[in-house]
Amino acid sequence: MFIQKYFEEFQLNDVRQTKGRTITETDIVIHAGQSGDFFPHHMDEEWCKSQPFKKRIAHGTLIFTVAIGLTADFVNEVSMTYGYERLRFIKPVFINDTIKVTVTIKDLKDHKKPEYGLVTELVECFNQHNELVMLCEHILMVKKGNS
Amino acid sequence: MFIQKYFEEFQLNDVRQTKGRTITETDIVIHAGQSGDFFPHHMDEEWCKSQPFKKRIAHGTLIFTVAIGLTADFVNEVSMTYGYERLRFIKPVFINDTIKVTVTIKDLKDHKKPEYGLVTELVECFNQHNELVMLCEHILMVKKGNS
Amino acid sequence: MFIQKYFEEFQLNDVRQTKGRTITETDIVIHAGQSGDFFPHHMDEEWCKSQPFKKRIAHGTLIFTVAIGLTADFVNEVSMTYGYERLRFIKPVFINDTIKVTVTIKDLKDHKKPEYGLVTELVECFNQHNELVMLCEHILMVKKGNS
Amino acid sequence: MFIQKYFEEFQLNDVRQTKGRTITETDIVIHAGQSGDFFPHHMDEEWCKSQPFKKRIAHGTLIFTVAIGLTADFVNEVSMTYGYERLRFIKPVFINDTIKVTVTIKDLKDHKKPEYGLVTELVECFNQHNELVMLCEHILMVKKGNS
Amino acid sequence: MFIQKYFEEFQLNDVRQTKGRTITETDIVIHAGQSGDFFPHHMDEEWCKSQPFKKRIAHGTLIFTVAIGLTADFVNEVSMTYGYERLRFIKPVFINDTIKVTVTIKDLKDHKKPEYGLVTELVECFNQHNELVMLCEHILMVKKGNS
Amino acid sequence: MFIQKYFEEFQLNDVRQTKGRTITETDIVIHAGQSGDFFPHHMDEEWCKSQPFKKRIAHGTLIFTVAIGLTADFVNEVSMTYGYERLRFIKPVFINDTIKVTVTIKDLKDHKKPEYGLVTELVECFNQHNELVMLCEHILMVKKGNS
Repeated sequence: MFIQKYFEEFQLNDVRQTKGRTITETDIVIHAGQSGDFFPHHMDEEWCKSQPFKKRIAHGTLIFTVAIGLTADFVNEVSMTYGYERLRFIKPVFINDTIKVTVTIKDLKDHKKPEYGLVTELVECFNQHNELVMLCEHILMVKKGNS
Repeated sequence: MFIQKYFEEFQLNDVRQTKGRTITETDIVIHAGQSGDFFPHHMDEEWCKSQPFKKRIAHGTLIFTVAIGLTADFVNEVSMTYGYERLRFIKPVFINDTIKVTVTIKDLKDHKKPEYGLVTELVECFNQHNELVMLCEHILMVKKGNS
Repeated sequence: MFIQKYFEEFQLNDVRQTKGRTITETDIVIHAGQSGDFFPHHMDEEWCKSQPFKKRIAHGTLIFTVAIGLTADFVNEVSMTYGYERLRFIKPVFINDTIKVTVTIKDLKDHKKPEYGLVTELVECFNQHNELVMLCEHILMVKKGNS
Repeated sequence: MFIQKYFEEFQLNDVRQTKGRTITETDIVIHAGQSGDFFPHHMDEEWCKSQPFKKRIAHGTLIFTVAIGLTADFVNEVSMTYGYERLRFIKPVFINDTIKVTVTIKDLKDHKKPEYGLVTELVECFNQHNELVMLCEHILMVKKGNS
Repeated sequence: MFIQKYFEEFQLNDVRQTKGRTITETDIVIHAGQSGDFFPHHMDEEWCKSQPFKKRIAHGTLIFTVAIGLTADFVNEVSMTYGYERLRFIKPVFINDTIKVTVTIKDLKDHKKPEYGLVTELVECFNQHNELVMLCEHILMVKKGNS
Repeated sequence: MFIQKYFEEFQLNDVRQTKGRTITETDIVIHAGQSGDFFPHHMDEEWCKSQPFKKRIAHGTLIFTVAIGLTADFVNEVSMTYGYERLRFIKPVFINDTIKVTVTIKDLKDHKKPEYGLVTELVECFNQHNELVMLCEHILMVKKGNS
């Protein structure tokens, strides 16, 4: 569970893939309840029939939450989240779609504090048709091993 | 509930403020259950005692979810989310902290599709001590009224 | 679980008392998520400090839901809810208050359909200080045994 | 979010309509968990097949909770709930039905405290076939503006 | 609700049957969130299609939880759970299956503390096709009435 | 996530330890809602004050669910649960206790199907005072590697 993976151990272009998860109506209802966002796009099947996408769609923040959660396997004790860039929702996710995440190391650079480096992970979330539905860059601040 | 606010109606530097919301232990437990992220930072009070922050902290994705949810008041029928930039978690949010969001129009520019413009909202989330805990830029793609 | 208690078997002034239940912060958060009511009275501890009641209070619909739920012990196969009258929220219910319900048969009368009678139960909900916090009249439409 | 709408500003026969909301299986399961009412009408699909209504139906307290929640848009700082009258469940609500609420000002009268008036809102809840499924009268105690 | 049923009042081979309950997708999603078990057997519909059972199945701990919950009707003030033996998951439970429990008194014996006896209940859980899906032995430590 | 660990690879007396998890009031409320068990031991703080244990305690099925969930880290594709034996609740778990699980391989034996073996894991659940609160034996049916 707990690991110590230092900055020098991250390899550019390394790729890992997560388990999949089916996005259910339950997830959307619980997410509305947590976020307070009861917009008809997520909660009103009748209204959605009148829209281009025809049926209820998952909240963007739900897909982001589940996608990031899928990547959270090991606790790296020498790493912390610095932030996220370029979060994009490319395609809607519908009830019963199954999503899966690919994480690719896209950039490695020094941080102004010399004992840290910045790791940029490209997080790409795909549905069961292998269509990209969401992407973002997750920037991690990771300790250097020699520090 | 439903409004039509076109690109031309957004004013640079306009500010609005949301209601507040107390982040409860319940929110964290439900968010762990939704995200699948049961990291000890959020779920293990004993382990947290051994860490610099001393007690359980909210998931970043929870604060992002609630903050964006707080801003979701009216359904603007001529606007959609384009994406988010520069999401940063500045300070930890603890159980029983109360957060509130300020939204400032920071940028307005044309989109390559001439009938749309891009609106950048700066989303700043503060705790009850008026400390900034999270910020991001929310980019909206908004129809132009003359299109 | 399943019983058949006919109109003639209800006795005026009969009283029964339910189990108790502590109203938790979790109940309020889940109820906000179910109802979509995130009013600061229930969700914003800081705002509540500026109000006469000083702390978060349970939604009226939560207390009604739990109180009626506490009375739901046996499934009476020959009875159905006709409606409720005079629902009143007498005192606020705070987090960690424990409520308990007393049900008294207050009225028995014929229904226009001759095979049914109307039973009026007075539902009184008390907190741990034995203060009345909510009351209503629950009207049941119950089959007559000789029908 | 926060408004101050005084008694004198309410107009008899004014009507407003809420957003819609689809009642999901999730809502019923969460409501059973909140109310403690696990009656087979809501929780046992097999048993329901043997009943006149043939499938699971939503709890009355769930429909009341969601309907009242749908009406909770603005926080009127000079108004509070006095109570509810004549709550009736006219037709069953099934999983995947979408409900919507119409609120009509039906009565305006003085309260014994001279600085308050009583506003009676007729709350009517319709399904996607425009059938009335629930109604009640919501009585509000509202400050007079000249007080 | 509260009863006092002493050891001597339990009869070998007595049988009681509970209400039924439909196991929903919601139950599985909430159970994943409570247990932290997001194995693809329960959460990934696409992966399940590649498995012998073809669709998502309920967690064993969910079926155990619901089955034991179905048996919890009266609070016997002179009884407590000693433990469970021989818990077996005989067949998978799928979304929308309806389960029901039969409890049979299988064994009655003395406890080393002379004022208690041990009651063994055979708990059998059946689906809507009357197939046994789970069983266990629930051992209760019950006060003797003459003690 | 997915591994293939065959029967021959299990070593008698091997021990692994899980992350910890704080049992919250939220967990108990959600578990009551899932199990349908609203016994006052878990839900009525006032009643609990009159009992030997003085405060609300977690459901046995909740502790079993969380403990087993904590052990579910890797999906072993060649293993399945055969059942559980000797489940015992040794001490009550209170709100805010933190539990952690130790798993020890206690027995390895052949199964009647020659291509499988039975692995018995002793599952011991401890609180933050290192007191044993629950134990059980988890029996796994695991493929042999040479089959």
